[in-house]
Amino acid sequence: MKRPGVAIALVHYPIVDRRGDRVTTAVTNLDIHDLARTSRTYGVERVYLVTPLVEQQHLVDRILDHWRQGHGASYNPKRAEALKLVTLVASLEEALADWKTISGQEPWPVLTGAACQGGISFGRCREKLAEQALLLIFGTGWGLAPELFERGWTVLEPIVGAGDTYNHLPVRSAAAIMLDRLLGATER
Amino acid sequence: MKRPGVAIALVHYPIVDRRGDRVTTAVTNLDIHDLARTSRTYGVERVYLVTPLVEQQHLVDRILDHWRQGHGASYNPKRAEALKLVTLVASLEEALADWKTISGQEPWPVLTGAACQGGISFGRCREKLAEQALLLIFGTGWGLAPELFERGWTVLEPIVGAGDTYNHLPVRSAAAIMLDRLLGATER
Repeated sequence: MKRPGVAIALVHYPIVDRRGDRVTTAVTNLDIHDLARTSRTYGVERVYLVTPLVEQQHLVDRILDHWRQGHGASYNPKRAEALKLVTLVASLEEALADWKTISGQEPWPVLTGAACQGGISFGRCREKLAEQALLLIFGTGWGLAPELFERGWTVLEPIVGAGDTYNHLPVRSAAAIMLDRLLGATER
Repeated sequence: MKRPGVAIALVHYPIVDRRGDRVTTAVTNLDIHDLARTSRTYGVERVYLVTPLVEQQHLVDRILDHWRQGHGASYNPKRAEALKLVTLVASLEEALADWKTISGQEPWPVLTGAACQGGISFGRCREKLAEQALLLIFGTGWGLAPELFERGWTVLEPIVGAGDTYNHLPVRSAAAIMLDRLLGATER
């Protein structure tokens, strides 16, 4: 039987900034490309870009059109293939609803972040992928806002690098490492 | 005894482009930031940016000055800390010579790439880190030029994602995954 699918969401609201204030971050072209390519490489089925700002949605639409149908698609077909995974939504609720329709299951939302002490282990999360469609949720800026952690959703343990106190991975790198730990085929 | 150190090199020449022609790629601001932050998180001691182009070296110097000493350093001290690892060199030979001086050892150069079939495994490479200072070498553009693979240097197995034929990770993501596999502290 096919494993239930995996989707990711990159959240631009609600996010905290460096002072801990609630903000909407700007969508960046590079996040879209990097997350789409990494997701395609690891067999992730959907990449949800979450932003409630209509102007930002229009900007993302233009970028996606260029690479999926415009000049970019013929220049770099591999890029086009990856960007087909990207779906623009206004909220996490919309992402969950869409992913439920596609996967045919109630999705399992899992929050990530550098400060997620006490979260479930990568090993346990990997096991659970056999049972339920996953939506792995990443923040931008200085991270997902606290109210998202008050929903009772599962939290994934943070990546620990060399084990000292420095832990400031770009979301592009953190997502790549997490997908490799959860979905990578290579024996360790 | 302290493990011998790990350094990485991001090569902008000699590189191949999409047609397989030999090119010098442009240094990108984002590669510098992402690789520095990931490297700092995983305890990598040096990030060598390899470019023979003098104008590119000046550009990189300006970027690094901004973040290490200028406005960027006070705005984001964590970023400054990561960017202190970055060292600009004109060639891989220069990177190896500098890393030899710093590590006090003959460094072990290891080439990476999406097409490195037959390379040593991540597990074997991880074991060897206990014995010798590593220089892990990443390409830009469409990858490291063939002549680098004719030097008799060790080649690391490629990252396999979902195991199908799509394998187009951004170098920022590939480097993050490789450093996690080689240096990550978390039990799997």
